[in-house]
Amino acid sequence: MKLYDCATAPSPRRVRIFAAEKGIQLDMVAIDLANGEQFGDAFRAINPDCVVPVLELDDGTRITEVLAICQYLEELNPEPPLIGRTPEERAAAVAWFTKIEQQGLLAMRDAFRNSAKGLKGHALTGPVGYEQIPELAERGRHCVRGFFERLEQQLDGNEFVAGAYYSIADITALVLTDFAAWTKIELPDDSVNLRRWYEKVSSRPSAKA
Amino acid sequence: MKLYDCATAPSPRRVRIFAAEKGIQLDMVAIDLANGEQFGDAFRAINPDCVVPVLELDDGTRITEVLAICQYLEELNPEPPLIGRTPEERAAAVAWFTKIEQQGLLAMRDAFRNSAKGLKGHALTGPVGYEQIPELAERGRHCVRGFFERLEQQLDGNEFVAGAYYSIADITALVLTDFAAWTKIELPDDSVNLRRWYEKVSSRPSAKA
Repeated sequence: MKLYDCATAPSPRRVRIFAAEKGIQLDMVAIDLANGEQFGDAFRAINPDCVVPVLELDDGTRITEVLAICQYLEELNPEPPLIGRTPEERAAAVAWFTKIEQQGLLAMRDAFRNSAKGLKGHALTGPVGYEQIPELAERGRHCVRGFFERLEQQLDGNEFVAGAYYSIADITALVLTDFAAWTKIELPDDSVNLRRWYEKVSSRPSAKA
Repeated sequence: MKLYDCATAPSPRRVRIFAAEKGIQLDMVAIDLANGEQFGDAFRAINPDCVVPVLELDDGTRITEVLAICQYLEELNPEPPLIGRTPEERAAAVAWFTKIEQQGLLAMRDAFRNSAKGLKGHALTGPVGYEQIPELAERGRHCVRGFFERLEQQLDGNEFVAGAYYSIADITALVLTDFAAWTKIELPDDSVNLRRWYEKVSSRPSAKA
């Protein structure tokens, strides 16, 4: 299987960590997002949304979207389970994945893409150019900080984000935390649970993937 | 099982349709979003994100987020399958669900919440008040129109959104289409595939749920 990837982008890193935890080897195909390779005809034919990651199976089937890719890898290679061991755990993992993606990563995307000089005219991912909205960058930063407080509460009494075991929710929250830190949004000083959790998940070998 | 619901909101309608397709009976608990019941202490204890739907199991476990709820119902009651019959179909259904939710429904949310007079100070769902950003309303409308073109292409040669069978992707796209029409964003006149598809999915008995 091939993974269309970009080493510096947050979303494909989630798939790389997920695969590393399962010991799945993927052939990496680097897409040069910084130089607009995602908008070229060759990549547009692979994913009209012009984003990575994309998983390509040996028969040519292509799977887009992080959760869809990870669920496919989980079915292919169930151990260790990273999206829950029971229906209730699976529901919690998917719910937290969704919250982190929508309230965390999409807010980070707003913060970053509406302020970075190099992304003028590209305030959204995808083929359509949208101008930056400075108020949205500010709102995004505020939302990410608020979401860290939400995670801090969730980790009070839970070893991991979705409960008692390491899951896809931790992977997504780790990538959010590193992406936020890179734009100078640090974990709040008093977030003892988040800091304890971050120490643990970022020291797993998969975090380097 | 109980579903915390609101008859006029798009997201819980997706769960109602999903459950109706499977013949699952849920006890409905109406939350009065128009009068702010979601921000009261009672509902905040049920879901700190202050949104519906929430599924409550008989043992008190609560499941949030539409995809997590629907995947739980699918495991409980697999027939008819609405999230795919094979790993590849499941991946396609989840990928399209994600695209429709993020590129369609979240753009609709931007369009609606950043322009409706009654939602001043509530440009995002959730407990934190954010002011409206008029440019974001305009961008949201543009994104929804662009996403309808994307769906039109996807439905060229596919009977349903995720392929050959009715799925959670159709349910979400139906709710998006109705929500958009309600705010005067109609399907493009020349979208023959979308119109053929809409006719079919909106005439299923579950569409009234």
